[in-house]
Amino acid sequence: MIEDLKRYFSKQELIPAVVQDARSGDVLMLAYMNEESLTKTLETGYTWYYSRSRKRLWRKGESSGNVQRVVSITGDCDDDTLLVRVEQTGSACHTGAPTCFFAEPIYRAKPEAE
Amino acid sequence: MIEDLKRYFSKQELIPAVVQDARSGDVLMLAYMNEESLTKTLETGYTWYYSRSRKRLWRKGESSGNVQRVVSITGDCDDDTLLVRVEQTGSACHTGAPTCFFAEPIYRAKPEAE
Repeated sequence: MIEDLKRYFSKQELIPAVVQDARSGDVLMLAYMNEESLTKTLETGYTWYYSRSRKRLWRKGESSGNVQRVVSITGDCDDDTLLVRVEQTGSACHTGAPTCFFAEPIYRAKPEAE
Repeated sequence: MIEDLKRYFSKQELIPAVVQDARSGDVLMLAYMNEESLTKTLETGYTWYYSRSRKRLWRKGESSGNVQRVVSITGDCDDDTLLVRVEQTGSACHTGAPTCFFAEPIYRAKPEAE
């Protein structure tokens, strides 16, 4: 089942993982994976990422308990992004918000044109 | 309405933009924006990205006609990712697929556990 994962990391060591709630379709967050974190995710069925600021792997929810059970992982057309559909326990964002995209939009289409 | 955009580019010149279909909720693609492409997107209401391979700005749909009208743009909790909700004309992917995530998943949760 685990394909050759190296093709995802041929251009860069870290690739973005778009994390989507499998039920609601909400985009929860974006995080980065290296080959090791992707391997651990596939082995455990729960998300592991690579923290660019802390320069280490982290298991999502390791301190908060807000784990993400993986429903599916799909690569994109040029093998440099992953779409990770999950069942989120608790809130995805470290702020406690349900998703990391809770801010007021910086742009909204004008209502009359929608 | 246009806030200070520089905060999104303080850590890196290019930030990932997760592009989501505003109606279906499908994640269509991931692309990168620099400050200039974000500015052009905000000014025109249609998506502009920065191509890392071609090292230049591109207007989504400039050759294919498959433009993306922006519905909203939201920054994430630490200002280094954008969620761009769009109305997609035609297919989002250069392959002609509706989304860039058309491949067979590399992981699926076991059905009995879902």
